[in-house]
Amino acid sequence: MNDSIEDPDAPAPGSRRPGGRTARTRAAVRDAVLTGLAEHGYPSLTVEYVAERSGVHKTTLYRRWGGVEGMVADALDLAGEDSWTPPDTGSLAGDLRALAREVVEGFGDPARAAAPTAFVGAAFQSPRAADALHSFYAERFRRCEEVVSRAVDRGEAPATTDAGAVVRAVSAPLFLRLFVTREPVDGSLADQAADAALAAVAAGVYTRRTGAPVTGARNKD
Amino acid sequence: MNDSIEDPDAPAPGSRRPGGRTARTRAAVRDAVLTGLAEHGYPSLTVEYVAERSGVHKTTLYRRWGGVEGMVADALDLAGEDSWTPPDTGSLAGDLRALAREVVEGFGDPARAAAPTAFVGAAFQSPRAADALHSFYAERFRRCEEVVSRAVDRGEAPATTDAGAVVRAVSAPLFLRLFVTREPVDGSLADQAADAALAAVAAGVYTRRTGAPVTGARNKD
Repeated sequence: MNDSIEDPDAPAPGSRRPGGRTARTRAAVRDAVLTGLAEHGYPSLTVEYVAERSGVHKTTLYRRWGGVEGMVADALDLAGEDSWTPPDTGSLAGDLRALAREVVEGFGDPARAAAPTAFVGAAFQSPRAADALHSFYAERFRRCEEVVSRAVDRGEAPATTDAGAVVRAVSAPLFLRLFVTREPVDGSLADQAADAALAAVAAGVYTRRTGAPVTGARNKD
Repeated sequence: MNDSIEDPDAPAPGSRRPGGRTARTRAAVRDAVLTGLAEHGYPSLTVEYVAERSGVHKTTLYRRWGGVEGMVADALDLAGEDSWTPPDTGSLAGDLRALAREVVEGFGDPARAAAPTAFVGAAFQSPRAADALHSFYAERFRRCEEVVSRAVDRGEAPATTDAGAVVRAVSAPLFLRLFVTREPVDGSLADQAADAALAAVAAGVYTRRTGAPVTGARNKD
């Protein structure tokens, strides 16, 4: 679920605008930002570093991105433009477990986790990074909701299930340990997180109440 | 559940060593660190700021704490020495909801949330802060486990319930939104998080498997 911000070698999302020099520049800057975040973290990321690493002139960087905050936010925006879709295993139980396992696989490996972790950390210091992170995850979780709508179609979940709350519940115990309590995560913890969300779905905890405000996910965008 | 790192006016835990000048100095430094984190965030916190704010000489600060990292870690250690205990409402459902509501109340108010949020952010940049944050939450959640052991005594949960996993599950959807997806939290979301954990307990998701590794909380300290 986090491939695009983990893998600087993935096809550049900017190449949607085919062959464009602008798209290539944007992707080069994104790659340099990811490398810089992974190696040094947000507080040490400088325009000078990105210029040297990307081969894009500092003047261009300042003109197009304004500075480090803008480049980090744009790298996250680009990460959100990939074609990732959630797993489709044929059951809600399987899909939720697969989603949770993707989180553990993505963040369990320190090398792959460094850049996305730095994005989460950058949001504590940069309001623009925080906005970009919010949008990134809003879109990610929106795509994940498909596993719940398929479950509704199969009769595995009530039609009134708040899909956004369910898919957030699956990641939440993992992100708590990765980013707050700093505890290890593994496959059995992933399964537990998925199974807990499934049990809560079955118990009707995530059922949207008609006429009442939705209690779960409230994407602002 | 987070009172001590939210409220710089709480009785100084260091005063355990009664009347000690050392304890007073430690508390003064802690207060300055909390104010600095709340007002400026971790990257802008300097020894100079703490010296001016606390009235403790820079030389003393460097000698006793080494620098900003050490002062932040010690402020977290001090926060963990308070006498907070989890709610006791008479039922597991009530206790879990009360725990979740404490998180929302503590972090829903930007003024109260600033310092503890800065601690979470600091852990992305400082290994010592990350260790201190890990210890703080390990101890916090250890205290929370009491709500599960009381529930076991009342026959509300299986004796094999992994209490650490349950109490982490209650906070997780809230911390996800506060620190990762940057979405609002409120009382109904708190209730939902608590009810989901309760449903998963009832379904046996958090049952420790005898003879198998514990899948949930694994405190290292």
